[in-house]
Amino acid sequence: MNSDELYALLRRRGVLWPSSEIYGGAQGLYDYGPLGAALKRRIEDAWRAWFLGLSDDYYEIDPAELLPEAVVRASGHLENFTDPEVVCDGCHRAYRADTILESARPEGVDGLSSEAIADLVRRFAPRCPACGAERLRVPRPFNLMFGLEFGAAAGDRAYLRPETAQNSYLAFARMWEVGRKALPLGIAVVGKAFRNEIAPRQILYRLRAFTQAELQIFFDPERWTVPIDVVRHDALPLVLARRRAAGDESIHPTTVEALVREENVPEFFAYHLAMAHRFYRDVLGYPAGRLRLFEKSETERAFYNRLQFDVEVNLDSLGGFREVGAVHYRGDYDLSRHSAGSGRDLAVTTGDGRRIVPHVLELTFGVDRNLWALADLHLVRDGERTVWKLPPYLAPLQVAVFPLLKKEHGPVARTIAEELRGEGWAVEYDDAGNVGRRYARVDEAGIPFAVTVDRETIEPGPAQGTVTVRLRDDRSQERLARARLAARLRPAFVFPHPPRAG
Amino acid sequence: MNSDELYALLRRRGVLWPSSEIYGGAQGLYDYGPLGAALKRRIEDAWRAWFLGLSDDYYEIDPAELLPEAVVRASGHLENFTDPEVVCDGCHRAYRADTILESARPEGVDGLSSEAIADLVRRFAPRCPACGAERLRVPRPFNLMFGLEFGAAAGDRAYLRPETAQNSYLAFARMWEVGRKALPLGIAVVGKAFRNEIAPRQILYRLRAFTQAELQIFFDPERWTVPIDVVRHDALPLVLARRRAAGDESIHPTTVEALVREENVPEFFAYHLAMAHRFYRDVLGYPAGRLRLFEKSETERAFYNRLQFDVEVNLDSLGGFREVGAVHYRGDYDLSRHSAGSGRDLAVTTGDGRRIVPHVLELTFGVDRNLWALADLHLVRDGERTVWKLPPYLAPLQVAVFPLLKKEHGPVARTIAEELRGEGWAVEYDDAGNVGRRYARVDEAGIPFAVTVDRETIEPGPAQGTVTVRLRDDRSQERLARARLAARLRPAFVFPHPPRAG
Repeated sequence: MNSDELYALLRRRGVLWPSSEIYGGAQGLYDYGPLGAALKRRIEDAWRAWFLGLSDDYYEIDPAELLPEAVVRASGHLENFTDPEVVCDGCHRAYRADTILESARPEGVDGLSSEAIADLVRRFAPRCPACGAERLRVPRPFNLMFGLEFGAAAGDRAYLRPETAQNSYLAFARMWEVGRKALPLGIAVVGKAFRNEIAPRQILYRLRAFTQAELQIFFDPERWTVPIDVVRHDALPLVLARRRAAGDESIHPTTVEALVREENVPEFFAYHLAMAHRFYRDVLGYPAGRLRLFEKSETERAFYNRLQFDVEVNLDSLGGFREVGAVHYRGDYDLSRHSAGSGRDLAVTTGDGRRIVPHVLELTFGVDRNLWALADLHLVRDGERTVWKLPPYLAPLQVAVFPLLKKEHGPVARTIAEELRGEGWAVEYDDAGNVGRRYARVDEAGIPFAVTVDRETIEPGPAQGTVTVRLRDDRSQERLARARLAARLRPAFVFPHPPRAG
Repeated sequence: MNSDELYALLRRRGVLWPSSEIYGGAQGLYDYGPLGAALKRRIEDAWRAWFLGLSDDYYEIDPAELLPEAVVRASGHLENFTDPEVVCDGCHRAYRADTILESARPEGVDGLSSEAIADLVRRFAPRCPACGAERLRVPRPFNLMFGLEFGAAAGDRAYLRPETAQNSYLAFARMWEVGRKALPLGIAVVGKAFRNEIAPRQILYRLRAFTQAELQIFFDPERWTVPIDVVRHDALPLVLARRRAAGDESIHPTTVEALVREENVPEFFAYHLAMAHRFYRDVLGYPAGRLRLFEKSETERAFYNRLQFDVEVNLDSLGGFREVGAVHYRGDYDLSRHSAGSGRDLAVTTGDGRRIVPHVLELTFGVDRNLWALADLHLVRDGERTVWKLPPYLAPLQVAVFPLLKKEHGPVARTIAEELRGEGWAVEYDDAGNVGRRYARVDEAGIPFAVTVDRETIEPGPAQGTVTVRLRDDRSQERLARARLAARLRPAFVFPHPPRAG
């Protein structure tokens, strides 16, 4: 499906729609409806089970979204978190410089000086694409943070966090204090981040409010042993920066072992990259052929990043590979900046008595982008059916319960639905229309199991007390005793955990 | 414990701390650490299981936190969501008028005209409490919303939502469209709301960013039948406005039946009030004697509220009864305002052909305030122990696993810990210190079960393959087979669901 078709289907099913829709919508903001909200929470929970399951030393915190100005000054966002923006003095519309220069310079304007960008705009974009006026102003840096007055009197300013990562850096000192005072220490945040994008676009892909799941791991670069053997033979779909520099943009499957030995990637980085790769492939169920790990070159990545691999997935709806997550080795940039900014020494003493500023490995994951990817990749036409083949533990609704006949089988079906709800599962009760139409709704909503109560369930005979369970993906049916239902379904709803070292 | 003692304990355990702490903190913002973040999510999940469990027609959505200006103009927040603020022209400190007048007028300034408040300030508060200057300006209305520039060029403004409720009103039209087009229709939001409080205080009680769980039920006031029999004989701890007007502020336990018959409270309201009451008493486990349902009088409640009962809980740490939730009957105010503001007709056609603007019943719940209450009420000194007697399904960490001896019993204990993690539970592995100290940590963190692996687990004999389970609250111990552990613990972690009508 293309983007419009997919979005139309998701909107019709109440998965998402434009925020403040009755007021004409708010650009770059979407609301998740019941299916979308539940799916989003399950993605977050799957992320937690996997990434926080990697180590007993990785923790989640839930910090405030507002940052005082001193914080974003120290982090560099106040000065540098900008996009070059071009404004039309005729119609007052604003454009990102790279958007307005798309045909003249498809590779974008990252790394160009503002003078160079201004020059390009003058040469290639003399007219406003909207009103046609020859009144485009030269680009100016536009800060993407939302700032606001914080407090009543003093004129203090605060900012909505442009990334959840800053909260983890701010929390490091306290987490060190209340914890076991040892490295590595992982601090995760799952929550909203906010960016005043000049040109939000592609629905969930570039939003003004979006949900990130990020894990910042603070470590001692001289002493971090990871269980590399667990992933040693994993084949990673790499696109390396050094090959790209030589003109080769293709994917070269490479083992973790070779990545460490031949590319000099540190073991701690390779291990976490491989575990992230497994999450996308095995937990979210992205087809192996749709994934690549795309290394950013020195000029492409932020100056403080020593290594950066973006996780990209090939989406028909967005026309190619798109970033849905990343692994960054940020060095000691973050804690050094906040030591300087706050005046609080964030160095720690290691077990062997060295005083160090911990380095940071960042695992970042875009919840909304992956929700979109889960729709793009798993919502398929299968003959006449539209089936959302989500992994069962991600399904927003987990079990459908039908009485074959509303009146005769309804009471027993209702009781079963209540029992399954009592297990904590999301149960859909549906007694409207014929069973074929109910199955169609179940398939489109991605409900992995449909339990039907019929005459045999109720009347004396060999099948009394049994129900049928219909599986979404292959439409196969099983007949089993009501009492065995919970045990049959439970394993499907457990989030996968990463293997630990023996 | 008083507020300071309780906060010190929670900070020391990493439950919460001031946000941006290394920068001196940000007033009115707190970060939840690992225990706090997990507890908060369990409170939210318990709320969902209970309130969304009331009806198949109640749904949760996950909308954006930013509202365009037109929305808050229509809702009345732009004009009316203000507190009277007094600013000192000497030191520029700002005060809420009711705070500065506390000793002169302990009942507060709600309902007074701005002239009357100005007069009181002149008479009773000539000096700034901070700098002593006689330069207090007369009160001015201070809008509590955080506003910001939204978008790049046009100068459009948006606001951080001051309550999650507005998103439900905005979503009504779309939810009607994608749903079964019938009333009642419940739309819940669990998420952040933001208020630029002039004087944030009492830690989690008045925050600048806080989490609400709110359910807005849209209904036909002429046709809403609720299963009142389920709660008919519930005794509610009422403080009625009519008794308060006659000088009686005490709690009168009153059945739902009597509330409907003698006080003319509509059945739909009484039913939901009773179900809310059960949630606080039975699910959160607040002692019955600590709860009251406090009716607001016509002058105390917002003008559009036809009925309002606040749920209040008596907290030692905050010195008395404090609001932790409420039930509001808001009439057709919200959809009428947004019909007018958006130009979209939000009236619907009922099953019997009438065209109506649905009325709204609002169930609101403060997640942070209840987290604090769960600490105040359940974190107790029991002899020499400090025990957080949280209901097991709310416990941030659910099972502790100990090897009695680190080396000998560690490998088996690790395996058991992994198995229990595989069930989706939050497991703490602890092999440090003696068992008594480990139990003390378990008790303070509120972990309901501690599983110990010892010699008997491992060595041949009648108890081989068994472990001990120690229960937090009464310190009793059970010995049971490893294989039965999951089945033994599972029921304790299921969130209670409300009973449905037979």
